[in-house]
Amino acid sequence: MGKPVKHIFVCSSSRINGQQKGYCHSNDAVNLVEMFMEELMERDLSGDVMVTNTGCLAICEKGPVVIVYPDNIWYGSVSEGDVEEIIEQHIEEDKPIERLQIYK
Amino acid sequence: MGKPVKHIFVCSSSRINGQQKGYCHSNDAVNLVEMFMEELMERDLSGDVMVTNTGCLAICEKGPVVIVYPDNIWYGSVSEGDVEEIIEQHIEEDKPIERLQIYK
Repeated sequence: MGKPVKHIFVCSSSRINGQQKGYCHSNDAVNLVEMFMEELMERDLSGDVMVTNTGCLAICEKGPVVIVYPDNIWYGSVSEGDVEEIIEQHIEEDKPIERLQIYK
Repeated sequence: MGKPVKHIFVCSSSRINGQQKGYCHSNDAVNLVEMFMEELMERDLSGDVMVTNTGCLAICEKGPVVIVYPDNIWYGSVSEGDVEEIIEQHIEEDKPIERLQIYK
């Protein structure tokens, strides 16, 4: 894979010292990472779209936070039920989802 | 801070299970994260530029890997000596550094 067409970053509160602690981590972010990966595999999009877990994005009150680059779209309070919608509408149809966006 | 003007991602091989293991982590990536943060603070850029550590970016042979979004510029084999150059030339002057780029 070269540069991904879309790059999904999911805050998993991964600290550089390895500590697993933080708002997103406590709110099911690890599960979100896995769900994004599975959904992409099922839709055969894994070759074009990358999912990467991150350290704290410093807007914990909006967590769990998901960013899609290079689109620069920031989603907040993302839950399991939003994963399929993000993949289908934003990733596949290129229509970012208004109601989940932190910055409009 | 709203959306950062530039967002620097540094692979620190942070796994979602908290394990600290992987090529970038073994090659001083944690130190790189801290150096980027310090350099930004010294130049008073912390309000506009965010640095975030990530999990594996799946191109370990090119590590340590640093990505600058939304520019979508991927740097490989980044070392301590490159941090100042990336900040000065790419972040401040908007001139991505050719010699460090993985994808041209």
